[in-house]
Amino acid sequence: MPLIIQKYGGTSVGSIDRINIVSERIAATYQAGNRLVVVVSAMTGETDRLLNLARQITLSPNQRETDMLISSGERVTSSLLAMALQNRGIPAQSFTGRQVGILTDNAHTQARIEQISADRLKDALAREIVPVVAGFQGINQVSDVTTLGRGGSDTTAVALAAALKADLCEIFTDVEGVYTTDPNVVSSARRLQKISYEEMLEMASLGAKVLHTRSVAFAMNYQIPVRVRSSFSDGEGTLVTEEDHEMEQEPVSGITCDKNQAKVTLIGVPDQPGIASKIFEALSRENMNVDMIIQNVGQEGLTDLSFTVPRGNADQAKEILSKLADAVGIKDVVLTERIAKVSIVGVGMRSHSGVAAKMFSRLAAEGINIMMISTSEIKISCVIHSKYTELAVRTLHEAFELGMKPTPNRKKT
Amino acid sequence: MPLIIQKYGGTSVGSIDRINIVSERIAATYQAGNRLVVVVSAMTGETDRLLNLARQITLSPNQRETDMLISSGERVTSSLLAMALQNRGIPAQSFTGRQVGILTDNAHTQARIEQISADRLKDALAREIVPVVAGFQGINQVSDVTTLGRGGSDTTAVALAAALKADLCEIFTDVEGVYTTDPNVVSSARRLQKISYEEMLEMASLGAKVLHTRSVAFAMNYQIPVRVRSSFSDGEGTLVTEEDHEMEQEPVSGITCDKNQAKVTLIGVPDQPGIASKIFEALSRENMNVDMIIQNVGQEGLTDLSFTVPRGNADQAKEILSKLADAVGIKDVVLTERIAKVSIVGVGMRSHSGVAAKMFSRLAAEGINIMMISTSEIKISCVIHSKYTELAVRTLHEAFELGMKPTPNRKKT
Repeated sequence: MPLIIQKYGGTSVGSIDRINIVSERIAATYQAGNRLVVVVSAMTGETDRLLNLARQITLSPNQRETDMLISSGERVTSSLLAMALQNRGIPAQSFTGRQVGILTDNAHTQARIEQISADRLKDALAREIVPVVAGFQGINQVSDVTTLGRGGSDTTAVALAAALKADLCEIFTDVEGVYTTDPNVVSSARRLQKISYEEMLEMASLGAKVLHTRSVAFAMNYQIPVRVRSSFSDGEGTLVTEEDHEMEQEPVSGITCDKNQAKVTLIGVPDQPGIASKIFEALSRENMNVDMIIQNVGQEGLTDLSFTVPRGNADQAKEILSKLADAVGIKDVVLTERIAKVSIVGVGMRSHSGVAAKMFSRLAAEGINIMMISTSEIKISCVIHSKYTELAVRTLHEAFELGMKPTPNRKKT
Repeated sequence: MPLIIQKYGGTSVGSIDRINIVSERIAATYQAGNRLVVVVSAMTGETDRLLNLARQITLSPNQRETDMLISSGERVTSSLLAMALQNRGIPAQSFTGRQVGILTDNAHTQARIEQISADRLKDALAREIVPVVAGFQGINQVSDVTTLGRGGSDTTAVALAAALKADLCEIFTDVEGVYTTDPNVVSSARRLQKISYEEMLEMASLGAKVLHTRSVAFAMNYQIPVRVRSSFSDGEGTLVTEEDHEMEQEPVSGITCDKNQAKVTLIGVPDQPGIASKIFEALSRENMNVDMIIQNVGQEGLTDLSFTVPRGNADQAKEILSKLADAVGIKDVVLTERIAKVSIVGVGMRSHSGVAAKMFSRLAAEGINIMMISTSEIKISCVIHSKYTELAVRTLHEAFELGMKPTPNRKKT
């Protein structure tokens, strides 16, 4: 009998009506002869409501306490959904992360799953019960509650799929799947039927919000097929799976943009071995997440060094480096906040040449200056002025022919 | 160093402002050189909010799921209060019922504590941490969350006091202590400085809402001094403790009334051995909580039998007995809903004669008919028509001289 993990996000269970609708879908899947494990997020707004209570007390709440606080949201949803299923005659039971044996490291609010015993889940499945698991949470070795970071319920779902060797992990959300780009920016954006783990991983890291990056990495490591689909419709969504021939036909699968970045430029850095490591070690000590790094050609023993950081960390990064400036001999630290990173992603790039050249020339043709470039085997990212973001995305979406072919009676999927 | 358990009820932690105020009191107790364990309820209204969500799904939610749902309220308060304490520089940590080792039986929503390991509490206290424990909850043997019934946080506090051999258990609430009777009914009601466990137990069972009955029984069994006091003032409250000479001076300590009862009368019951047991076994099988029972003198082999049940169970009781009527030979089942039970309580009754006679004659003098009587060593209860409730309480309060002596500059305590 197939085993399916279904995860429902916050908007999918955002009200009692929604919980009832979702319970109907679960009941249908169960009655169709599947074994099922359901993972739920907190109801929309609940985590923010709880965090707001904490912020009324202190602007820097203790992270262990924060985890105790916000993990309650998923418990509420899991018990309510279990009741709704029981109400339909489906034998359901709620479980916390602890009860299904999700053991994490000790990094409160950003914990990583280290081990899953899943004994109670196996037992429940053997008794034909539908377990409804509170996502986003586990316990550490001293049995304190930990949470997996925003979007962590995706990770719970995929990790349980791996632990239980599930046949499929379905992630139900409020969009129809993974799109070639944000449909709010480009109206002709097309839903992808399939996407490879690698591409999804790049797109998630590059700002596509449909799946949590770590959940994609987990799915890739354990080869779990993941289907992203809407709980508001019957659309088939997007299957995230291993790369196949079909996927390689096009050089580019999707385009992402991330406006949540800032650029820090260090001017007049001594062009000597060991200087860069001093700079990035100072940032790393403060858990600063540095993304793209470029170094200009040096003149007279001096060079300029630029990198990007999340915009929320930009002021802190400038502060850290300004303190370091005298000791290391940096002339100036300049912050540029109005930037955006636009990226094209596709496994087809490997076998198509000229993709980068096409990207750069099309941006240039629109008068968009490229400040920084970074590439991997399956993606190319450019940092540009943020005012050109939408123009760049539309231009590239058209250039790589990602849009839907208009037909007279086209239905929106 | 003295060890004090402080429990704060829902109104005492009903808002972020209240949580901050309470944290100030805890900080003061800690800084005065005490070791402290704090137990909290859910914020006012939170348990009802959660139960209301469940009721929107089903009118008879599964009890295991109900416990998972409503236990989240205390977790939220415990983490928020821990944050507020940390904000004042007090080393605090929140703990769930599970984390402090509260093991209960399996009676979901009405569980009883079977064992407390309290290892983490002892460890925290040794490290001078103030543990903030989510009240009202524990886990059963399969590690599912259980709750202790309404008011169960009182029981958590007293049970932890027993497990840790605390010097004092303080129950903070929104009233100034235990009163001779409900101050809303009798304006001259007086706060008691002390009350014995036995009296408090009777008063709690008889409708005084200030303490959870089971918590009083626990305190009595383990000889834990309990102080009931207000978190909204600096009043010293009421000490619940062992009986002493001071208490015995007056025959009556307090008067309670309970309007939440109904009377069931069985007319024409065969006056034979075994009939009563059939009747009460039938009620017991449905977990019906029968209180007072009286049987009239029989005539011609028939008798009338009356008893009281909680008003919410009255219709069910009538239904059960109507089904039984033919088999057992009961002629009729009559329900009387508009009744009230008025009780006088006092350890002094043991050494004073004529207390009952005085109660009956004073009620008679006011034209109040007594329908049923039940007595114990330290209490006398009368069932009367509910329309006389307040009159009866005022009359008895005056008859036994429980009121405050009016003085020109009397301050309300």
